[in-house]
Amino acid sequence: MEDIIAVFKERPKLKDPIFVEGLPGVGNVGKLAAEHLVDQLKAVKFVEMFSKYFPPQVLVTDAGTIRLVSNELFYVMRPLMKNDLVIMTGDYQGLTPEGQYALSDRTLQIIKELGVNRIYTLGGYGLGKMIEKPRVLGAASDLELVDEMKTFGVTFSKGEPGSGIVGASGLLLGLGNLYGMRSVCLMGETSGYFVDPKGAQAVLEVLAKILGVTIDFSDLEQKAQQIDAITSKLKEIEAPAVPKREDLGYIG
Amino acid sequence: MEDIIAVFKERPKLKDPIFVEGLPGVGNVGKLAAEHLVDQLKAVKFVEMFSKYFPPQVLVTDAGTIRLVSNELFYVMRPLMKNDLVIMTGDYQGLTPEGQYALSDRTLQIIKELGVNRIYTLGGYGLGKMIEKPRVLGAASDLELVDEMKTFGVTFSKGEPGSGIVGASGLLLGLGNLYGMRSVCLMGETSGYFVDPKGAQAVLEVLAKILGVTIDFSDLEQKAQQIDAITSKLKEIEAPAVPKREDLGYIG
Amino acid sequence: MEDIIAVFKERPKLKDPIFVEGLPGVGNVGKLAAEHLVDQLKAVKFVEMFSKYFPPQVLVTDAGTIRLVSNELFYVMRPLMKNDLVIMTGDYQGLTPEGQYALSDRTLQIIKELGVNRIYTLGGYGLGKMIEKPRVLGAASDLELVDEMKTFGVTFSKGEPGSGIVGASGLLLGLGNLYGMRSVCLMGETSGYFVDPKGAQAVLEVLAKILGVTIDFSDLEQKAQQIDAITSKLKEIEAPAVPKREDLGYIG
Amino acid sequence: MEDIIAVFKERPKLKDPIFVEGLPGVGNVGKLAAEHLVDQLKAVKFVEMFSKYFPPQVLVTDAGTIRLVSNELFYVMRPLMKNDLVIMTGDYQGLTPEGQYALSDRTLQIIKELGVNRIYTLGGYGLGKMIEKPRVLGAASDLELVDEMKTFGVTFSKGEPGSGIVGASGLLLGLGNLYGMRSVCLMGETSGYFVDPKGAQAVLEVLAKILGVTIDFSDLEQKAQQIDAITSKLKEIEAPAVPKREDLGYIG
Repeated sequence: MEDIIAVFKERPKLKDPIFVEGLPGVGNVGKLAAEHLVDQLKAVKFVEMFSKYFPPQVLVTDAGTIRLVSNELFYVMRPLMKNDLVIMTGDYQGLTPEGQYALSDRTLQIIKELGVNRIYTLGGYGLGKMIEKPRVLGAASDLELVDEMKTFGVTFSKGEPGSGIVGASGLLLGLGNLYGMRSVCLMGETSGYFVDPKGAQAVLEVLAKILGVTIDFSDLEQKAQQIDAITSKLKEIEAPAVPKREDLGYIG
Repeated sequence: MEDIIAVFKERPKLKDPIFVEGLPGVGNVGKLAAEHLVDQLKAVKFVEMFSKYFPPQVLVTDAGTIRLVSNELFYVMRPLMKNDLVIMTGDYQGLTPEGQYALSDRTLQIIKELGVNRIYTLGGYGLGKMIEKPRVLGAASDLELVDEMKTFGVTFSKGEPGSGIVGASGLLLGLGNLYGMRSVCLMGETSGYFVDPKGAQAVLEVLAKILGVTIDFSDLEQKAQQIDAITSKLKEIEAPAVPKREDLGYIG
Repeated sequence: MEDIIAVFKERPKLKDPIFVEGLPGVGNVGKLAAEHLVDQLKAVKFVEMFSKYFPPQVLVTDAGTIRLVSNELFYVMRPLMKNDLVIMTGDYQGLTPEGQYALSDRTLQIIKELGVNRIYTLGGYGLGKMIEKPRVLGAASDLELVDEMKTFGVTFSKGEPGSGIVGASGLLLGLGNLYGMRSVCLMGETSGYFVDPKGAQAVLEVLAKILGVTIDFSDLEQKAQQIDAITSKLKEIEAPAVPKREDLGYIG
Repeated sequence: MEDIIAVFKERPKLKDPIFVEGLPGVGNVGKLAAEHLVDQLKAVKFVEMFSKYFPPQVLVTDAGTIRLVSNELFYVMRPLMKNDLVIMTGDYQGLTPEGQYALSDRTLQIIKELGVNRIYTLGGYGLGKMIEKPRVLGAASDLELVDEMKTFGVTFSKGEPGSGIVGASGLLLGLGNLYGMRSVCLMGETSGYFVDPKGAQAVLEVLAKILGVTIDFSDLEQKAQQIDAITSKLKEIEAPAVPKREDLGYIG
């Protein structure tokens, strides 16, 4: 068996596409954001990636059918814009460091062939404490992009994240350099204790401006209210043991 | 050394064979069921699979001879029926996710060559509590098979198993899709605390109807009575610490 | 880098050689026995095996020079006997199951080329309690060898070892079958708490008869007395926590 | 993706170069020493090594740009001396034993091609207690080098380090033998509790004499004073639990 199997349902011709990645991680911020983007832009699934670096697991749908855990690529054609989009999300990140590298590299090969030159990876920045108004922190492949991102309200803060960016959101940037791609990681602040739609919304609000898309956030806001309802109840009961900040200060 | 070594003792010509898998897992339901099926149908061993993904271990027989841990394939020729059978059981599943993928994929290659188009995988569904009359839960590759299975008394219950199906019983379905095979997983409810012949019997009763075979269950019933005798003693002594349900809600 | 590097210092022509293996394991019985055999028979080192499956470590000699951890092969030419000998010992076994398989398989390739048809692997059988007169338990590739071994005083006891034989001493037998080699594992009973020269001597006494060699045991006896002196002191202080038997009932 | 990617920025022609390695490890002695050497000798970076054996991580600079974790090679041309220098340092060592072997072997391939015949690896020797005047312990590929090193004040002490040398500093010596390279490991004594500039200085003072270079230590001395200030405060508060010596007696 190949280490990674990429099944193409379609071979779309894309116009100078921009790549957006959001996989499970801290607060699930990246995955929530990418999935919401797929929904809002009615993006079309065209690649499924299966791999021995994922858990040996199938998921069971409500109808009783199964599907093997995967990462997926979607495309959005935008005839009136300069750039089409490719969006990646999925069930898992690679389980091992070697798997992480192999999966990011394979992804870069695929999007290179599609003509991608610009990457945005989405993730959460774990604070280890509740946050009312999450900032969006950034990191980028070059200083010009750092400056460009600042104009969109992205915060670049010396020493944050101190431990760097771990996982696909980091590797796609780091390995992307070797493919000559320019890239940005957008990290929404999050407690890291819960799935965090508020962090996802913060990230998407910035990304929407960058990509020139309009996004309805009512779904995410509703999810955020549900989470808020739960956490405000939990606040009444003092948490006996919370993860330490240093365990959370990275990006999934 | 090859990662997986398949030693063929024989190359049988099989008539549109159906594949049945039962390996060690929750309550050992799948393995017990597959082994009982091999015994009852006097299935003939024809493949031994050895692999570096299994533990580095030989087992010692009562006579003092050794055998390397393995997975094994058996066949049953059924001249009066439409389908012959291939049954897989063994000592272990792959130790790592990568090993799980590699072993399931190799198994699919072998059974593809044998002409298999239909797969039944057998496993246990851990409840984390004692169960008197185990149901048989199902998951399938497509909706048509879901409906077909319902006619045999298989339960399809939304959200069960919530965490999907882990291990060979899941992967053979998920990867089997890529080989164009239609497949069903049958999961017998079990506490997950003990080797569970009752769960195995529940699964086999359904499978017997599907395959059109007659099975004598007296051996399994005897084993079940032995386990019941032990567990009823244990009930008198309250167990001090039991595995949590979320640790058990998967299939081996 | 190759996974396993075998450096030959010499390519001896050996006469129908018998292979003896003893690597670190329970009570270090196998390694002690193999090293004592090398010393006593003035065996000549001719292969060094290095591997990424061993720890990334060099050992420092008393003189201050280093050597990379390895497994080593020695030969003994016996002009007056039917069989020459090849003896294997070393610093470590493979760290992972995959490494164990790869190392045993590579060893079998090498000794196959040397003309080996018979294997004796040496190990300890952990009892989890102190033992005065260790028995030598056996397991073999076929019934004829079981019977032959009984004539040398080897014990074959139903259900011992219950969990099979783990590690090189098991794999060389199990994989050896695939190379058409007949094989025996000799396991000296040992508490498993200490390096155990007494268990090694028990194993070697049997092996000496099988191989037709004369061995002086004064070195091992001296070491055993030193260990006895330590353990008798320890007996006065009741051990607060000892490993459970099930953790020890295997062979290294 | 290749397991290890070596990106050459330049292909310098070097004159009989000597190789010096210092990577993260006990007390970070080796890395501190190698980095200080790079600074002092104004060494020029010419190779970046990326690998799936490193963590899947990018580091974020104060300016907000990212770089993938790596090992790096620097060169120093010394027109008036017999030997040019190649210095290696980096963010991490390989995460697994297999990664350690693969990375050291690849490094040896690269420096072999550059014409390296002599290796110095730098590390810390953890004592598990505070040390006022750290000695520099040594280990070497051959007795002649042991004697040569003694003339530079390197201590060769029977039984130290008892557990050998683990990691790149050991493997480059051990595998280097297979490449026909002569080598020395220099280990600065360190408590192992803190990043230890004092241990790094001790190692560099010896190395400076060996290489015939002049090094200004004011930076390291300043760092050492900062650490001393912290540790003297900590001494007032008795440490409740300290790592045991046997956990520390190795080299990174």
